[in-house]
Amino acid sequence: MSNWFSGGKAVDTISVNDRGFQYGDGLFETIAIRSGGPRFWSHHMDRLSRGCELLRISMPAEQELSDGVLQALAASNVPKEYAVAKIIVSAGIGQRGYGRPNADEPLILYGAFASSPAPARSYEKGIDAILCNTRLASNSQLAGLKTLNRLEQVLARSEVTSINGFEGLTMDADDRLICGTMSNVFFVNNSVLSTPPVDRSGVAGIMRRHVMLTLEEQGVEVEVRHTSRAELQDVDEVFLTNSQFGIIPIRSCMKYKWPVGEVTRSVMALLAQNGVIECRQ
Amino acid sequence: MSNWFSGGKAVDTISVNDRGFQYGDGLFETIAIRSGGPRFWSHHMDRLSRGCELLRISMPAEQELSDGVLQALAASNVPKEYAVAKIIVSAGIGQRGYGRPNADEPLILYGAFASSPAPARSYEKGIDAILCNTRLASNSQLAGLKTLNRLEQVLARSEVTSINGFEGLTMDADDRLICGTMSNVFFVNNSVLSTPPVDRSGVAGIMRRHVMLTLEEQGVEVEVRHTSRAELQDVDEVFLTNSQFGIIPIRSCMKYKWPVGEVTRSVMALLAQNGVIECRQ
Repeated sequence: MSNWFSGGKAVDTISVNDRGFQYGDGLFETIAIRSGGPRFWSHHMDRLSRGCELLRISMPAEQELSDGVLQALAASNVPKEYAVAKIIVSAGIGQRGYGRPNADEPLILYGAFASSPAPARSYEKGIDAILCNTRLASNSQLAGLKTLNRLEQVLARSEVTSINGFEGLTMDADDRLICGTMSNVFFVNNSVLSTPPVDRSGVAGIMRRHVMLTLEEQGVEVEVRHTSRAELQDVDEVFLTNSQFGIIPIRSCMKYKWPVGEVTRSVMALLAQNGVIECRQ
Repeated sequence: MSNWFSGGKAVDTISVNDRGFQYGDGLFETIAIRSGGPRFWSHHMDRLSRGCELLRISMPAEQELSDGVLQALAASNVPKEYAVAKIIVSAGIGQRGYGRPNADEPLILYGAFASSPAPARSYEKGIDAILCNTRLASNSQLAGLKTLNRLEQVLARSEVTSINGFEGLTMDADDRLICGTMSNVFFVNNSVLSTPPVDRSGVAGIMRRHVMLTLEEQGVEVEVRHTSRAELQDVDEVFLTNSQFGIIPIRSCMKYKWPVGEVTRSVMALLAQNGVIECRQ
């Protein structure tokens, strides 16, 4: 049984001429399904819409995308209470060559998959992260988006999986921390929260945005600024965000060790009240 | 009838779970077929092999790849005298997630397509190039390789096709010329040849390599160094290289105009004697 659906039907394959395969000419969103529905849908739609605009792919109607996700969930043998859905929007079948002269007919795929929460221990004690050797390139056009060009993440993630790790932090060429291989990162210095900009590399994560907006509503500002590798020694607390797991603290990275501190705990408590059940302590 | 083959059979589709589609986790080569066989095969194999090493994909045996190309050519309705073949090596079917913990079983695809020489006029008079707004990111790991992550080229190429142009030059973030959207670029200053390094962005083109090796055999050095946008005004001649078309001069880019000069003509004549029939004048 396939976990993928398109146009209301189960699909196992795509055309070999699909531009998503030939060039990575497309986008995706990985959406947490909680209590039968997508979480932070509008944030996902915002990011997908920005990606479609850049790649000049017609953004599908939100209702169509929402129906597609729910249909995939209903048709697949996946617990609706707690699952993960993936939408892929590819530029569709094209002729040979990088250029896309004609109006596109995008391919829209919906996947539904079982998902398990991260271990409770990760939330309580924090996780040990590695610092990846793989660097993220700077590209202000593609930065922030979730395109199908994900080789940097593949390479960085392979460093993590090769040691059975949970997550690795990635830097740009200038030794500045950008994000995790599948998460964003927040730092706490003297009770001030910050997160690196993702306008030149990295992905503008959904949970990153939710954390920033939730804190903003509380009158707490998150500074968007860089933290370099050398500055890690001055950091008091570090935590990761991800649309699936919410917030997970980092307790160590290389020689640096951090407590799961008060600020991290209070942000987790705030999120637990605001739609992120994983952060319940 | 499909133009794609895998394992000796025609294929129209690939698995939706193929990592080439999901993440662009793979490589390709576009090979000129001349007089029934691949041109510059060993250069293509070198680059593919370097790519496989980086992506930790088992490099297929050269004989297997060579047989695959010839089988695709034989099975497809394509003139064997003058055609183009494409090899795609994807990491194959994977589980969800960026990491690739298990040994891979790569998917190898062979495509054969009809191809026409560029117009004779392009070789004689040169072409008008644009300067693309799309910038190339710097990534020393992925630079030089032909991975399936090609969104920068897609975006840049769309600038060219939108005005029905032949080619556009692309720069890195520091205003340095790197290559064309589907070609490499050579500059002539005071009879000295140079081409930009492709160790941080761009593709290490097959014809670029052939030109450099051929000139080296003649005792002519090609300097590998950057030319900035501002330095374009000091350039005497400019030409493009590509595995399919060989060498095509650029006669203008923006406000700059260049003759199809003596150095360009002599390199074209040299190539015409060394396996690049397109350069015959």
